[in-house]
Amino acid sequence: MKIDVCFSPALYPFYQNNEAVVVVVDIFRATTTICAALVNGARKIIPVASTDEAREYKSKGYLVGAERNVKRCDFADFGNSPFDYTPDHVAGKEIVFTTTNGTQAIQAASSAHALVIGAFVNLTSVVQFCTEEKRDVVILCSGWNNKFNLEDSIFAGALIEQLLESKFEIVSDAAIAAWLLWKQSKHHPLHVLEKSEHYQRLKSNEILDQINFCLSIDLVMGLPILKEGALVLI
Amino acid sequence: MKIDVCFSPALYPFYQNNEAVVVVVDIFRATTTICAALVNGARKIIPVASTDEAREYKSKGYLVGAERNVKRCDFADFGNSPFDYTPDHVAGKEIVFTTTNGTQAIQAASSAHALVIGAFVNLTSVVQFCTEEKRDVVILCSGWNNKFNLEDSIFAGALIEQLLESKFEIVSDAAIAAWLLWKQSKHHPLHVLEKSEHYQRLKSNEILDQINFCLSIDLVMGLPILKEGALVLI
Repeated sequence: MKIDVCFSPALYPFYQNNEAVVVVVDIFRATTTICAALVNGARKIIPVASTDEAREYKSKGYLVGAERNVKRCDFADFGNSPFDYTPDHVAGKEIVFTTTNGTQAIQAASSAHALVIGAFVNLTSVVQFCTEEKRDVVILCSGWNNKFNLEDSIFAGALIEQLLESKFEIVSDAAIAAWLLWKQSKHHPLHVLEKSEHYQRLKSNEILDQINFCLSIDLVMGLPILKEGALVLI
Repeated sequence: MKIDVCFSPALYPFYQNNEAVVVVVDIFRATTTICAALVNGARKIIPVASTDEAREYKSKGYLVGAERNVKRCDFADFGNSPFDYTPDHVAGKEIVFTTTNGTQAIQAASSAHALVIGAFVNLTSVVQFCTEEKRDVVILCSGWNNKFNLEDSIFAGALIEQLLESKFEIVSDAAIAAWLLWKQSKHHPLHVLEKSEHYQRLKSNEILDQINFCLSIDLVMGLPILKEGALVLI
């Protein structure tokens, strides 16, 4: 089985493989937050690409998580912090969710054989699923406004390192690069990420406390998967 | 002055900065070959994106270099090997040139304040120009069919390392990643690149002899720049 990495939703047409498992990644913070919300009891998360759609769901009475450019949208119940989605707020609920980058990536890859949500917080669950599926894997990094970002790429490298222990092989330059970046940062990811664009954005919005959570490996066991347009836990 | 890196022509709209110097890179082999042809005496190189355009120029009597998927197009005088463009063939001539990736990248960035051609073979000339221009620099990697590639990214890192010695600063995650990849490969670039997609392509076409040339630093002094639709030496 082959592993590939796509560094931007805008490049996905060149990496598309509808027979593959696509792992969508947005470490800061959408895919981390989706894991937190579902593990905290949300019944399903309905990803939508635009704030207009999210607003429409809100008017129909849905709980809505919505973020643009790091900030919670004013009409929304939650933003994009994993700390917003506590069990008392989300248990048993359906939540509509839109973010600057992550939900666009989910939409881009929605025709994949299986679309799952990956983050450091559920790394082992992702590895287990990919290993059991025995299919090619495409890791789709959400990036930032279609640009390359470091944190998603480094996570791709971490996932590659694990998959190479099973019968996966690297087939692309992007996968080699992600693996090299992970090797260079794994012992001190924050040391590399402190210089990154999104770290600076989170810092200027005074929400650095979420970074440690987003970089913690295997805080949760559980894998969000896209089923009939909604993310649910396997 | 800021340095940014764009890993694919398809991502250029998200990195576009028309006030910047854009350095177009296609190490294997278009930008290496353009340097070789001009330093060997070609008067100008007219980059065109499609083989149809190149064929039309050919019918008007132009010398034509044309390559697709590593191979020379059958109607062309030259392929994409730097060894094709010897002084006895090119001195004083205008050459129309189209390749799988490099000439697409040139077209994507043709509205930049200045578009120059960068490769390991003319690294110092690129650094000198950027330093004298005192403008932002965007390094545009040609990639392979709009996908990320290693050799162009590693070159971007090598150029960044040099520019950081002047008053340039890194502003983006892509530039940090390119720099990290260069740091990891600079002592043995071939060791990293042996696993790359394009190395394998060149190997299967039995043209590995060109790789050492393409990875040699400062074989030539000279900088191709786009002027009125054609590349000429500064």
